[in-house]
Order: sequence, then structure tokens, then C-alpha cells
Amino acid sequence: MALAPSERGGPLTGITVIDLTRVLAGPYCTLMLAELGARVIKVEEPGVGDISRSIGPFLNGKSAYFISLNRDKESIALNLKLDADRAIFEQLLDQADVLVENFRPGTMEKLGYGWETLHKRWPALIFAAASGFGQTGPYAKRPAYDMVVQGMGGVMSLTGHPGGPPTRVGSSIGDLAAGMFAAAGINASLFERSRTGRGVMVDIGMLDAQVALLENAIVRYTATGNVPGPLGARHPSIAPFAAFTSKDGHIIVACGTNKAFLDLADALGTPELGRDPRFDTPTIRVENVDQLQIVLDDLFATRTTAEWLVILEARGLPCGPINDVAQVMADPQVAARNMIVHTEDPVAGHVQMGGNPIKISGHPDGTLRRHAPNLDENREALLAELAMQAG
Amino acid sequence: MALAPSERGGPLTGITVIDLTRVLAGPYCTLMLAELGARVIKVEEPGVGDISRSIGPFLNGKSAYFISLNRDKESIALNLKLDADRAIFEQLLDQADVLVENFRPGTMEKLGYGWETLHKRWPALIFAAASGFGQTGPYAKRPAYDMVVQGMGGVMSLTGHPGGPPTRVGSSIGDLAAGMFAAAGINASLFERSRTGRGVMVDIGMLDAQVALLENAIVRYTATGNVPGPLGARHPSIAPFAAFTSKDGHIIVACGTNKAFLDLADALGTPELGRDPRFDTPTIRVENVDQLQIVLDDLFATRTTAEWLVILEARGLPCGPINDVAQVMADPQVAARNMIVHTEDPVAGHVQMGGNPIKISGHPDGTLRRHAPNLDENREALLAELAMQAG
Repeated sequence: MALAPSERGGPLTGITVIDLTRVLAGPYCTLMLAELGARVIKVEEPGVGDISRSIGPFLNGKSAYFISLNRDKESIALNLKLDADRAIFEQLLDQADVLVENFRPGTMEKLGYGWETLHKRWPALIFAAASGFGQTGPYAKRPAYDMVVQGMGGVMSLTGHPGGPPTRVGSSIGDLAAGMFAAAGINASLFERSRTGRGVMVDIGMLDAQVALLENAIVRYTATGNVPGPLGARHPSIAPFAAFTSKDGHIIVACGTNKAFLDLADALGTPELGRDPRFDTPTIRVENVDQLQIVLDDLFATRTTAEWLVILEARGLPCGPINDVAQVMADPQVAARNMIVHTEDPVAGHVQMGGNPIKISGHPDGTLRRHAPNLDENREALLAELAMQAG
Repeated sequence: MALAPSERGGPLTGITVIDLTRVLAGPYCTLMLAELGARVIKVEEPGVGDISRSIGPFLNGKSAYFISLNRDKESIALNLKLDADRAIFEQLLDQADVLVENFRPGTMEKLGYGWETLHKRWPALIFAAASGFGQTGPYAKRPAYDMVVQGMGGVMSLTGHPGGPPTRVGSSIGDLAAGMFAAAGINASLFERSRTGRGVMVDIGMLDAQVALLENAIVRYTATGNVPGPLGARHPSIAPFAAFTSKDGHIIVACGTNKAFLDLADALGTPELGRDPRFDTPTIRVENVDQLQIVLDDLFATRTTAEWLVILEARGLPCGPINDVAQVMADPQVAARNMIVHTEDPVAGHVQMGGNPIKISGHPDGTLRRHAPNLDENREALLAELAMQAG
């Protein structure tokens, strides 16, 4: 708490996070904390550092992937098995509000920094642990990566096309969701600590996070007995709510109300669809969703995606294109919301990355971020700060 | 703040949330707040209520979908266009810490409850708005649903198989991610308010949330110039990290290190793969990922998924099955973590739902939840509480 605050403002200004995390779930959590204004100090293994430093693509030898997850953080390399380095680590904890790690359960205990030990010595410290399966239960000690929990947690059984091959969610939602829940739990615990003065342990399992995101699939199964399967590009219980084939690609249209469907039928030049007994109620449209898809695909095939978007947007119908990453980055709304940010890295140069989706009044939301640290880059400055605290 | 706390304990005990949200992004946010101990009071449109009340599946006429998102909340029906009901709403705000809505931008202003107005009258109130595109930018006033932002935000361009049809992420990540970021932002703002005494506005756009989840796709594009496409069931930059075909289904194996690949080659009875020049470094395995897939599919085809899991788990290799929702619900780890919770609903009976993935020491993590309210169910009790506050 007594270290200098981060240069970025935010609701967590003045909060210091000691970050033992590697690769993705943990670093994504601490990235969210940094975006909210916390000062994040990575403690990395000497010589190697966060494993994501070795994952491409590289720019002048520095991982752009690492940069995107670790901008606006600091780095010190410490070997937590050596007494001298442990002393520095403990001095950092003396000044810290939050400690985050995503080791396999048991690792912190082996290092002598299990929750009981930490809480006794630093009673106000919030300790967050993100792991594959959480700290308890029969799988607690097993390793996990994103795809393992995507498979075990059910989302892959819902993603893809009926009868088709297994399909992974295209971004690492197994890791990212765990990081997001960890950040939400840490923030709630900072609030609680403002009332109690005491820290808590936040225990996040990647598999738990996947179960929490199954949404309607659990009640669809438990209320009906039918095991939900993959549905391609449509919603399980609303129609039309799908991707359709246009003259030059695809268009997504989502009619959440009956009125929206009538408007769509009108926009397509086929108002009679709204009175067609196969399609005239929300329930029957879901029953006849395959026929509806054929009818709408034929209608949408007569114009380009861009042409249809103009027509449907004029009527206020929820619709959109399927953008690739280049198109996302060129989208004027994405730019207007500062959702592409950049850093000027002394090694890698100009790097663009996803921005902060949590916009809060009174706090800056610029597009420039401090560069991601080289391994051990902030050692001297941190040691000097700690010496000032001690003296 | 002066209303009675929720019966559930948690870091947000004593916090009162007034909830104007409908369907998914907003209700998922306030569900997270309820799981963290906040008291959540839904203010619903008389006669209709939250639209999700009309989305199936139904149990004795009550939506199981609504129940799963709104357990542990209360309900009062108010018409915010009528003076008498506005007076009640304002009495609720007098007692509230947080107001959450997910209307289209401009709706709150039309009701006379825009942020400026709210902040002037209730300076300590935190106001969170989740919308399709956020409160600013050229698309701000457009409607959006989950699939629209899944398409526009890029994740659909990464999900599915090369050359295959468009593929939606099987759970509504467009909504759920916005709800998660909103909850994280609200929690951070509660912490900030503990220091400043002042509320802020949290502005969440569903499209922003999708961009924030693109992860490595942005740097893969900006650092290399190659637009990332769908990759089926494998990781873009690590191999093997994919689903493989076993004798009776599929198995997911994720080798995050070179040592893990050597262990896998050994477990498969083909240690020579580790020295095969096509596969002997992490980089070259990614280059030759199609050949690696064929080789490993052939090897995995010799045993069942269950047999392979025993062999690979014994070596500590990250691996798992592709579970459907029934298998997820039967998983002993999911049970041990209390990730399936239930409510005993007076109308719908026993309903099972996903649990709370944010486990925090010192707070209960049981599996029973209070039932989701019928429309206006808590009117009398709430009015009595407000009368006591006033008197």
C-alpha cells in the first residue's frame, strides 16, 4: 500500500498487486486489475520468466503475446527457493494489498507461502489463486490448460455443428473466464477489506468458471431431460437468431420479439411470412427452425451483406456482419470506444492490443499503455523503493 | 444500505442493488452480485416483467431459464412512467448502493433517470449500464443481441472449422462476458466509493467485451499481418493442444511444454516421435500441426478415451474428455466444488443451475438458493420496509 501508485488512474489506484502468474488465466486477471488502476508487480523466475515470453508471434525477439497480456506491469526476477530472494519477496508482500498466483495447488505450500502462513503474517493481504480445478476436490492436483476445461466443462459439446467434428471456442475462454471471475472476486474482497480490515483467499477453478458459463444449457437439460448438442450458428430457443447466407457472405439477424420478426418479414419483402402457420409464433418458429433457415437463406441470398445491413438497421433490427480480426480493428465503433490500445515497446516497437471494456466515469480511458517489462526490468527501482520504505 | 441484508453471506453483504435488467447480460451481472452476498431487488414492468419469464423451458408454467438467472433476487413491479411508482422507485434508490440496467442507451434519460440526474440526487449511488455497444460511439443507439456481437466482435471468425459454415460459441458469451465485466467494474467501484464516498457510472458495451476477449488473435494479426481464421479444435500457437479421435470418441491433450510432448510420445508407446525432425521442437510442431494430428489420431484410435485418460493422467499430462452437459453434471469434481446448485421453487419445484465460481474464504458456499421471485412477489414486504425507513 505504501509503494507509489500506478501512473494509470482508476478505482484501484493505490492498490499494489504482487503477481506470480504465468501465461493466461492469472495474467489476464492482473491485466484487468492494472486496467482498473492497480500497480502490478510481476515476480518471475530468473532466466526464464513468464512462459508466455517464449510464445510467438515475436517482434524483434520479444513476444507480442506476452506484451499484450503484461503491458502496464513491472517485473522483478526472484528465485523463491533462495533466502535472499525470499526476503525481497516478503518485503514486497509487506507493501502489497493483493497476491495472485496460478500455480498448481500445493505449490505455494511447498514454497512456504500457503494461505494459512500468508494470512497469519499478512492478515490484510488478499490472496487469489487461479488453478485448473480449484484448491479442493478430487482433481485439485491435476494440471489443466484452456482446452482441457473447455472440453470437460461442456462448452465444446454446445459449440460446432450437429454431427460435425469437435470445435473449440476460438478464444481461450477456459483461461479468460477464470481470470475475469478472479478479478471480480478480488475487487469484491478489496471492498470487504475496507470494512473488516482483513484479507481473504479467493479460490478460482477454471472448470468451475466453465460450468458457470453454461447458461441455459443446464436448465434445458434438467428441465427437459434432453442433452443439449451443438447448434451451429443459431440460438437454442429463439428463432430467427442465427447466421444466414447473403449474396457475398453471411449476416447475423436476431429477432428477440415477435414484432421484430414481423418487421424482418416486411424488410425482406415477404410480409406473408409473419402469417405463415409454420412461423407465426415464437414457439413454432423454434420448432420449424430448419425450414425457417432455408426460407431466410433464400431471401438473404438476393443481396450482399452490406446491402442488407443498411435495410435492417434502418428498421432498428438487431443485425450484423461476421467480422474477422482485421475488420474488428477497422470498425469505427471499436475505435470510438478505445478498444484497440497500443504500447511503444523499446524492443518490439509499436504493438496494438485489446483495450479495457470496463469504462468508469471520472477515470482516464486513453489508448496508450506503458510497455510490458523485460524480465527483471524494474529490479533496481523496486529495491530502491523498498529500501526507502525500510529506512 | 439501510435495507435488510441478503440472507446469503459474502463480501457484498449489506449492499443493495436495484436491478432494472432483462434477459441476460444484466441479470447475469446481478446474479454474480447476489452470489457475492448483495441483496438484489428486480424492478420489473407490470404485467410482463423480465422478458426471460417468457423463454422456455417451463416447469409448471414458470420459466426454468428465468429461475436460473434470478434465484436469490426479489421482485417488485413498477411502471416508471407513473408518478406513484416513480416515488417507490426513488425510495428504493434512497436505500440503494448500486443501480444496474441494460436498456438501449437513451432509455434512462427518457425516464428522467440519466446518469447526470441520478448522480446529482444520489451522489453515492453506483450506476452500471450494460448495452450492446456502450453509451458512446456511432453504434450506441443500435440494438444488439448476443449473436450480433459474437459476429461483429470477431470470436465467430475464430470459431469453427476452416472452410466450414459460421459457428456460434455455444453459450451466450456475448451477453455473459458483458455481465462479468460489469460485475468486476461495480465491485471495483464499491471499493473506490469506500475511499471517496462518491458513486460513479460503469459503462459496459457487449461489443467492447468481445474485443477484450480476442486474446492472442489481435497480436497474431498485427504482428504478422495474417488474419486469424477458425482452427477447429486446436490451439493456434501450441501443438499438440487439440482434440484427437479415440476408439470411442475424442480426447483432448494439451502439451504446453516440450517435456510434456516427450512424455506424451512415451505414453503413446512411440518415444521416437520426440526425436522426429517434423516434431522435435515446439515451433516445428506448430508448422507441421496437420501431420502431427494424423499421427496422433492414429495412435489414439487404438484405445478408448477412458483408457487413455488413465494412462495420461498417471503421467500428469493435461488431458480430458469432451463432456456433454449430463456428463458435466455427473462429474465428481463439479459436485465437490458445489458448482451445481438448486432451488426449491414454490411453482416450478426442484430446479438445478450452475453455481458460484468465486469461492472466498470465510463465506458460505452451499448448494441451496432462495427461489426466483414471481413477478411483484416481494411488493408488500418491500413497501413495509420502505415505510419503516421513512417513519
